Amino acid sequence: MKLITIGREFGSGGRELGQRLAETLGFAYYDSEIIREVAEKTNLSEAYVARMVEKRPFPLFSITHGGTFSSAYDPHFALNNTIYNQQTAILKDMANRSDCVIVGRCADYILRELSPLRVFVYADMPHKMARCRERAPEGEHLSDRKLAAKIRAVDKDRRQYYEFFTSQKWGSRECYDLMLNTAMGIDACLAAVTALVK
Amino acid sequence: MKLITIGREFGSGGRELGQRLAETLGFAYYDSEIIREVAEKTNLSEAYVARMVEKRPFPLFSITHGGTFSSAYDPHFALNNTIYNQQTAILKDMANRSDCVIVGRCADYILRELSPLRVFVYADMPHKMARCRERAPEGEHLSDRKLAAKIRAVDKDRRQYYEFFTSQKWGSRECYDLMLNTAMGIDACLAAVTALVK
Repeated sequence: MKLITIGREFGSGGRELGQRLAETLGFAYYDSEIIREVAEKTNLSEAYVARMVEKRPFPLFSITHGGTFSSAYDPHFALNNTIYNQQTAILKDMANRSDCVIVGRCADYILRELSPLRVFVYADMPHKMARCRERAPEGEHLSDRKLAAKIRAVDKDRRQYYEFFTSQKWGSRECYDLMLNTAMGIDACLAAVTALVK
Repeated sequence: MKLITIGREFGSGGRELGQRLAETLGFAYYDSEIIREVAEKTNLSEAYVARMVEKRPFPLFSITHGGTFSSAYDPHFALNNTIYNQQTAILKDMANRSDCVIVGRCADYILRELSPLRVFVYADMPHKMARCRERAPEGEHLSDRKLAAKIRAVDKDRRQYYEFFTSQKWGSRECYDLMLNTAMGIDACLAAVTALVK
């Protein structure tokens, strides 16, 4: 099975790259579907789970470091670990079912034994802001300052979530095979990844 | 003019990638030629210049930060700045003469106004060590520990040199368009960069 995982800064186009890559290569594509499946299995509302998985569990003990901390008395921590564990099982199941592209969800780390092509995409703030504005829900008119703050806040959550569960440094080169600045355009990035996979 | 700059961890194959890229694309290729040309212009011995340019100048005041420090009384600092300034002039001249690939020498920063494709290559320590052993001069038999220490020492010099002259973070994604883990193989990396340039 071939597997491509994509980590991404918010607003850098990781989802578009992933979808177009899956389409080009004839691979399955996963991101929010995973959350939906987790939500069904845990009987939690989808919106609640979606909100939870982008936030790291409290308190800040990394589960990969072990230690004596018990989660038994912290329902938030216990719940978020349950979600993570179920995601892990589902990701492994999906990756073993067909060639696929998986965006986010620490898939590069969770599925490391399957030797994924680990991609990370990023861009400078002006490019990410322009991308967010193009795709903003109708009626949303954030100031530049508020939009930049929102982008930084989402990435902070992603970084903390990733680093909590993997003990690796989000967006740092040692965790990835290929890192792409999407300011070059999604077409160019698609060509580069496709050339690597073929 | 098209320009590709390659930053690289020691032992990751940046020079091989650069040479093959230049050959594939029909671009000029530069790395140590630059040093030779600088050496001729400054009348310093080539070996001395080669040793100097991989070491940052002392003391650790970044020239891009300005300030009140005067280099007049520090011949090492003054000499190294002279080399850097001459390299800058030569790099600009070369990049304006033809399409080219330039490995190292802060070319991504020095030539930023020409909008280069800024590539950085890296690999994990076992891959870099294997590569160094394949290319070791006859009779060199370093222990694993010594070889790893040598690799780290060269990269420390590169990082300090880069960060001194550019005030940017060497090997950090915001400085590059494309970052490649050469553990994937130079062929795969070559294919990815070529797909981006075409």
